[in-house]
Amino acid sequence: MNTASIPVGSIRKSGAAARFPLDRWYVAGFSSELQDQPIGRTFLNQKVVLFRTGSGEIAALEDRCCHRSLPLSCGTVEADGVRCGYHGLLYAPSGQCLEIPGQERIPSKARVRSYRVVEKDRIVWIWMPRDEDSAPAVEPPDYPHHDDPRYKFGSGMYHYKAPWQLIHDNLLDLSHLGYVHLKTIGGNARLHMNAPMKVTQDGDTVKVVRLMPGSTPPPTYRAAWPFGDTCDRWQEIEFHVSHLAIWTGAMEPGSGAIDDPRRGGFHMRGFHGITPETEDTCHYFWSMASNKHPDMPENIDTVVEQTAYTFDEDRVVIEDQYRNIADFGDRNSWMDIHVDAGANRARRIVERLLADVRPEEVAG
Amino acid sequence: MNTASIPVGSIRKSGAAARFPLDRWYVAGFSSELQDQPIGRTFLNQKVVLFRTGSGEIAALEDRCCHRSLPLSCGTVEADGVRCGYHGLLYAPSGQCLEIPGQERIPSKARVRSYRVVEKDRIVWIWMPRDEDSAPAVEPPDYPHHDDPRYKFGSGMYHYKAPWQLIHDNLLDLSHLGYVHLKTIGGNARLHMNAPMKVTQDGDTVKVVRLMPGSTPPPTYRAAWPFGDTCDRWQEIEFHVSHLAIWTGAMEPGSGAIDDPRRGGFHMRGFHGITPETEDTCHYFWSMASNKHPDMPENIDTVVEQTAYTFDEDRVVIEDQYRNIADFGDRNSWMDIHVDAGANRARRIVERLLADVRPEEVAG
Amino acid sequence: MNTASIPVGSIRKSGAAARFPLDRWYVAGFSSELQDQPIGRTFLNQKVVLFRTGSGEIAALEDRCCHRSLPLSCGTVEADGVRCGYHGLLYAPSGQCLEIPGQERIPSKARVRSYRVVEKDRIVWIWMPRDEDSAPAVEPPDYPHHDDPRYKFGSGMYHYKAPWQLIHDNLLDLSHLGYVHLKTIGGNARLHMNAPMKVTQDGDTVKVVRLMPGSTPPPTYRAAWPFGDTCDRWQEIEFHVSHLAIWTGAMEPGSGAIDDPRRGGFHMRGFHGITPETEDTCHYFWSMASNKHPDMPENIDTVVEQTAYTFDEDRVVIEDQYRNIADFGDRNSWMDIHVDAGANRARRIVERLLADVRPEEVAG
Repeated sequence: MNTASIPVGSIRKSGAAARFPLDRWYVAGFSSELQDQPIGRTFLNQKVVLFRTGSGEIAALEDRCCHRSLPLSCGTVEADGVRCGYHGLLYAPSGQCLEIPGQERIPSKARVRSYRVVEKDRIVWIWMPRDEDSAPAVEPPDYPHHDDPRYKFGSGMYHYKAPWQLIHDNLLDLSHLGYVHLKTIGGNARLHMNAPMKVTQDGDTVKVVRLMPGSTPPPTYRAAWPFGDTCDRWQEIEFHVSHLAIWTGAMEPGSGAIDDPRRGGFHMRGFHGITPETEDTCHYFWSMASNKHPDMPENIDTVVEQTAYTFDEDRVVIEDQYRNIADFGDRNSWMDIHVDAGANRARRIVERLLADVRPEEVAG
Repeated sequence: MNTASIPVGSIRKSGAAARFPLDRWYVAGFSSELQDQPIGRTFLNQKVVLFRTGSGEIAALEDRCCHRSLPLSCGTVEADGVRCGYHGLLYAPSGQCLEIPGQERIPSKARVRSYRVVEKDRIVWIWMPRDEDSAPAVEPPDYPHHDDPRYKFGSGMYHYKAPWQLIHDNLLDLSHLGYVHLKTIGGNARLHMNAPMKVTQDGDTVKVVRLMPGSTPPPTYRAAWPFGDTCDRWQEIEFHVSHLAIWTGAMEPGSGAIDDPRRGGFHMRGFHGITPETEDTCHYFWSMASNKHPDMPENIDTVVEQTAYTFDEDRVVIEDQYRNIADFGDRNSWMDIHVDAGANRARRIVERLLADVRPEEVAG
Repeated sequence: MNTASIPVGSIRKSGAAARFPLDRWYVAGFSSELQDQPIGRTFLNQKVVLFRTGSGEIAALEDRCCHRSLPLSCGTVEADGVRCGYHGLLYAPSGQCLEIPGQERIPSKARVRSYRVVEKDRIVWIWMPRDEDSAPAVEPPDYPHHDDPRYKFGSGMYHYKAPWQLIHDNLLDLSHLGYVHLKTIGGNARLHMNAPMKVTQDGDTVKVVRLMPGSTPPPTYRAAWPFGDTCDRWQEIEFHVSHLAIWTGAMEPGSGAIDDPRRGGFHMRGFHGITPETEDTCHYFWSMASNKHPDMPENIDTVVEQTAYTFDEDRVVIEDQYRNIADFGDRNSWMDIHVDAGANRARRIVERLLADVRPEEVAG
């Protein structure tokens, strides 16, 4: 049990400028979303338009035409860039204005800020710099499971009326499954609560493992895999500041070591890209990859469908939680219990990163 | 006519902390509402969860789990208390945490504030103390009419986007019936306006009586009782800070003294529990008890149904009124007329009670 | 091209009191709206009730009963005035209370502020004074086209979640037709952008003319007039602080001088009364008059219908634009292009009028 309490003040410093870890890749969306329409999204209080040009290149610009401030996401995508939907100014992926209809001269100030974006592993990553010139020193994180031939995945996105760290808390402790997700991946509340939880940290990565041999298969597991009365179940959670990779699953009882990374059985590989929108809201980009069972041809579709249902249950709880935090204001205080060890480590990592931000670098 | 004007400033002191009379019983709901689900409500800016345990005991706690702030009203009721819907902490009616799943030790700080609640006359009363230790010196008010064998009652609840005192104003002067409730209990605008209104005060209780012999029976009266062309009608309003008891009705013309408390005829006994939610909003808990007529078997159902309609008409007017007060802000001023005598007395009582609140005791 | 940039700060001075040009007639509505119900509207932050008495007289009062602040627009219109819907106080068009039901004496303070209103050319104009005593020195503007026997008109009204000057910007530069209104009066983006734009100013009136001979008729023109492949098209915009009169249309190619005010062909005469509601919102009262074609009996109905659709497209764009301006806050800056010459003149006129307002005369 972790006894060092995380001050609730770290959830939301009222009156303070919103602060987020900068010089960092965040998830902006999935590759599949960037079709022929521009997409407007706010990341870390910055309004961004995402689009894919006719040549297939992806781009991200400040979502505001420099002429009269219409969002560029209200415009149209062309071969060379995005065209404003009000008076037709055309912008290149670099942010440079390429054309002002009816006007020959393009003033030097005719440009908008551009953001570095990279498409990798079916995920669109955006670099959120400390200042406009700070270039990425690292590649975006790897997530090989979307292209693993053993798996097929589905993805989705939820908008949260809650700060991003409340989702970290939720995902770093799966004991809530026994209370929140009874209809899908939950049940076994006591087993979750009593299973030993192993928490380790390596730099800014936190790993939480819970093994539950002899567990009753929850509804989603039964719907996706021909389990009997019991299964040997694992939960491996890996927290990174921009996202979590969660590998859960189960095997026939006694059919192998449940902590062996080469284990067989039923796999659920969850990707969770959590990107702050504002200090009070965030984007939650998720995917779920699973493996086919020869006798259950639709099993992955079932897993994805029930995952969407499950994550929406979380959204309801977390938004209720945040509304209550906001309502109680200064009268909040949090009492830690044994399951909070992993989440509290993640909160300390984010706190340390925020402390490194010099005041003049505050985003927003 | 009351010429001493009540300053509009007493409606809402902008910028000032919300203040309400404390050390007082308020209506929290009706007994019939407390079934197998917890109910979350805010009283006097304090978020409360109400529930009835498996043993039938009713309880009220601060609506926030001390672990991670989820409202306890999102949880479930068990035999011994209410269980949080996120990680399963169980709380007794005393506010003491009885169980933290998977953790043996219950820290001493694992508890939430509890409120005194009493169930009496089918009404749930909650004690709103000046400080956590101030215990009630008195019993909750009596309201014997719910269990009077001559009557049957129905009840309802409205949430108001308006401060509670605007409802006092409304109920202490029934002359608005002639303009607002033409379809149910209204009509006779001139008769209402011209009937003498007798206002008396005894401590913090105000009584307003208006007698209207030879009145045309309004639609609800006709639908519920076989009146002829005229009736002798009475309106007796009793204001208490937490609620109003209003006894209206009518008799066959000349069939007795309409100011005799043992009078017969058609009775409408209204209970109006008005509990501030915030300084801008309130709860309105009402019941209407009426007597059966041998030839009109459904008459009480009709009365309750039309009462719900009538009180919703009031809500529309009062919410429009409050939006306008808010829009005009400092530019409001109120000119009193003859019908305001009772309402102004009630306002002075509340003003005096608020003046007694020491600054450090301000709620919220 | 206009190079003197209008500071974005003139769009919205955050924190500053709302300011509007006063001592001026604004559009309050259309004559056809004032039937048997009072209408509540806010002009320049002032809540007003408009009504027409039984004698046909129109009136405008402060929308607040001086008794208990219910909006008078929730009341009823009678032969002599408007009666409050709560306790029946009756007000004359002068603002004087004529009756307090049940009370003989009418106190001298029983009155509300009245506004001067004039009905002219099917338009209801309201005088918004610097102070209550400043009487109009001029008549409301003329708009003879509603009663021109060659035309028939339809009208409508949009509520905008955007400040009024963004609509001026929009209407003073019709080059946006090529991007926003492709389905109705748009198309020909390049032709619009390349056509010379003549901007002239006379006092507080700005005139913008764009002539486009040899233009492809846009969809609405084709639906309303039997044009061939091309037409000679004109756009004449006349800005006044309270409204714009826009005369657009087209003729058979070469059938006459398109800058001749006696020209024939297809006419669209648009009236655009734009009245601030608050600093962030406004009312847009529009009418469209057109001339009948002998072979197309329904042509004017088509024009009015497509105009309503077109103006709603503008509303979507302008509200998106304003939300973005608000979101970017101090980080907005506007880069002028060639089409902004007319709109910028109008902005300077309003700026000058606002600078004339002494601080103590600020509205609201």
